[in-house]
Amino acid sequence: MSARTVLERCDELALVSALPDGYIERTYLTVEHKAANALAAQWMTEAGLATWQDAAGNVCGRLEGERPGLPALLLGSHLDTVPQAGRYDGILGVMIAIDVAARITASGGRLPFALELVGFGDEEGSRFGATLLGSRALAGTWDSRWWPLADADGVSLREAYAAFGLDPDAVGRAARRTGDVIGYLEAHIEQGPVLEERGRALGIVTSIAGARRMLITVTGRAAHAGTRYSLRRDALAGAAEAILAVESLAPDLGVIATVGRLAAQPGAVNVVAGCATLSLDLRAASDEVRDAGLEALLAEIEKICARRGLSVGVEQTHVAETVHCDEALKAALAAAVASTGDGDPLELFSPPGHDAMALASLTRVGMLFIRCAGGVSHHPEESVLAADVALAIDAMHTAVLGLAERYGNERYGKLSI
Amino acid sequence: MSARTVLERCDELALVSALPDGYIERTYLTVEHKAANALAAQWMTEAGLATWQDAAGNVCGRLEGERPGLPALLLGSHLDTVPQAGRYDGILGVMIAIDVAARITASGGRLPFALELVGFGDEEGSRFGATLLGSRALAGTWDSRWWPLADADGVSLREAYAAFGLDPDAVGRAARRTGDVIGYLEAHIEQGPVLEERGRALGIVTSIAGARRMLITVTGRAAHAGTRYSLRRDALAGAAEAILAVESLAPDLGVIATVGRLAAQPGAVNVVAGCATLSLDLRAASDEVRDAGLEALLAEIEKICARRGLSVGVEQTHVAETVHCDEALKAALAAAVASTGDGDPLELFSPPGHDAMALASLTRVGMLFIRCAGGVSHHPEESVLAADVALAIDAMHTAVLGLAERYGNERYGKLSI
Repeated sequence: MSARTVLERCDELALVSALPDGYIERTYLTVEHKAANALAAQWMTEAGLATWQDAAGNVCGRLEGERPGLPALLLGSHLDTVPQAGRYDGILGVMIAIDVAARITASGGRLPFALELVGFGDEEGSRFGATLLGSRALAGTWDSRWWPLADADGVSLREAYAAFGLDPDAVGRAARRTGDVIGYLEAHIEQGPVLEERGRALGIVTSIAGARRMLITVTGRAAHAGTRYSLRRDALAGAAEAILAVESLAPDLGVIATVGRLAAQPGAVNVVAGCATLSLDLRAASDEVRDAGLEALLAEIEKICARRGLSVGVEQTHVAETVHCDEALKAALAAAVASTGDGDPLELFSPPGHDAMALASLTRVGMLFIRCAGGVSHHPEESVLAADVALAIDAMHTAVLGLAERYGNERYGKLSI
Repeated sequence: MSARTVLERCDELALVSALPDGYIERTYLTVEHKAANALAAQWMTEAGLATWQDAAGNVCGRLEGERPGLPALLLGSHLDTVPQAGRYDGILGVMIAIDVAARITASGGRLPFALELVGFGDEEGSRFGATLLGSRALAGTWDSRWWPLADADGVSLREAYAAFGLDPDAVGRAARRTGDVIGYLEAHIEQGPVLEERGRALGIVTSIAGARRMLITVTGRAAHAGTRYSLRRDALAGAAEAILAVESLAPDLGVIATVGRLAAQPGAVNVVAGCATLSLDLRAASDEVRDAGLEALLAEIEKICARRGLSVGVEQTHVAETVHCDEALKAALAAAVASTGDGDPLELFSPPGHDAMALASLTRVGMLFIRCAGGVSHHPEESVLAADVALAIDAMHTAVLGLAERYGNERYGKLSI
């Protein structure tokens, strides 16, 4: 019943898209963003919440606790998508949160904390390159160096704020104060195969991998395509060998490594490439494993290139620390999952980043993963089982009630979960 | 003495460039083309030739034979360059031809044929993509489908003709008639290491490889960079393996294969590539070897992609037949090389294309290769030895005189070399 509503709402949001023919694209500060916020606000209102759009374009709803003005437990995820997205990545977590809030409203019980829902306006970073813009604004870690970032049409983030009806200079108002928030829970599709492989509907996230991203430049010598092999210093062939080395070594190093971008210069059909640049994205369950893996991969790439007479330059373009989920929130989610009958809670780490990463600098965070078909995400084929969604709603609801119980018992002491 | 003049003229032409800081770029129908033609025409005039610019922008010079209007032996190469070029590819052959003509003028002897020199305006195809435009105009194989081809600034070939002062509709006038031409000889740097490895200054070209070019599209599935390897269908990793397979198999297949261009879609740092396109340029001493090699390489690429769950599309973007040099012209060049004391003539095939390829549809062709340092070409480090250039001038001069002798003896018979 609840799961059906949640899935129907995901379907309805899938129609709010910048792309034709059923493809989904909904990016930060667009008309689609505005329309998605309006729908989410309507559903939050129906669930009994007071709603507003914050200074960064996040759509928010609040259910007061035993008395007005208590610190809040936040529930949420993001409403934006990548281009040609699926309909559940992010969205499902917001819809589940709304359903949980509706249940609490319907039960008439009052929690010892306020419940706040957030549908973040930007997690994917598809429009302006920088990611987690919505959640970082709320966490108070907005970076003013982002303002000049421009989208594919040359519209800057600052201009987009104004066009959306937001005041860029007021973005600081989106930031929550530590004392007003007691924690953040997020439900999200796994975007991986572990739950499916283990035959489990739900999983408890231990950590969210902080990616490191490098730009690797391989330099050889451009030459005529008629040049014999002994004379070549082919940068693209070196880059190709580097890609295969990354692919073959990464599993044993415990890292998930991706080369998603590659360019060859001069890039002509009849010229051996003199230069190739490739991106490298690296994730692992901990920063130590990730960094050791990166070192090993770069050493191998250096070796490959040295053998080929190529030089290598490496530049770090992004780094984020791995976020470890809070023990108390993990315990609450685990107890809740166990109560659904899904068996002993399965713990797993998250290679993709999530809004919870940004929230971690404001408050303790916990995440519940939901099985998705084939582990597929960022793709129209993204799909979930209604039964799993039903279990996820139950688990999130139970986790909130569990936290309420614990918080209720302790609040006259430490005022913490 | 002559070699010094030739090298000084190459240095002087190197200054006629669209690039600053000593880098060389001189492309078809530009102000640099006009300036290079003016210099070449001046040197041809000094060598005793009547000069003109033909309807395709090639600079031409003619030395009449025993009587005016005789069919001509053509000597030439091209004056255009790739971007960031060397100073000898093409240019050296034109300068050697001018020096040979000057010697014949100085000797006062009259040949039983006219001698015509051509500095082709386009061989590299750097500006409009299509190659050999100058030599194909002269050979009468101009293709009117080239007219809309545009350069990087959007200027079409037709517009560039008009801007250069040429009438596009008169390009047919550049075409020579078969009866007016008895053969074409071209001297050119080897652009390869064979002569250097064998310790030889000069080589006789047996054939000029006709390249086949393919566009290969590898399709997998785009996925989040956090996706575990077991679930990936990474098109870029498949393309990388294809590049390495081409590199490792080509030598045993007797082909020279190059992947110079590669693009990954969506090409984002944090997305596993769903699609990759790569170019493949293939050359060999004969079309049979080349085509068999291509088949073997494509079969291997199919195998690699099938194993990875990727699909492969192959589209041919260019094909040219291998041109075999004429036996009589090869014999004349071989006798001439032997007479220089460079030892038994060394025969070799040319992986790069040359103006002689285009001329082959008009007349018999022969080519002399000159050793270049490290086999390097299409690069500022292109270099030749003055002693080798001196031998090349002697060999070309001797070959012309040898052909004159043979042609003189036979002309009352078959009127052929």
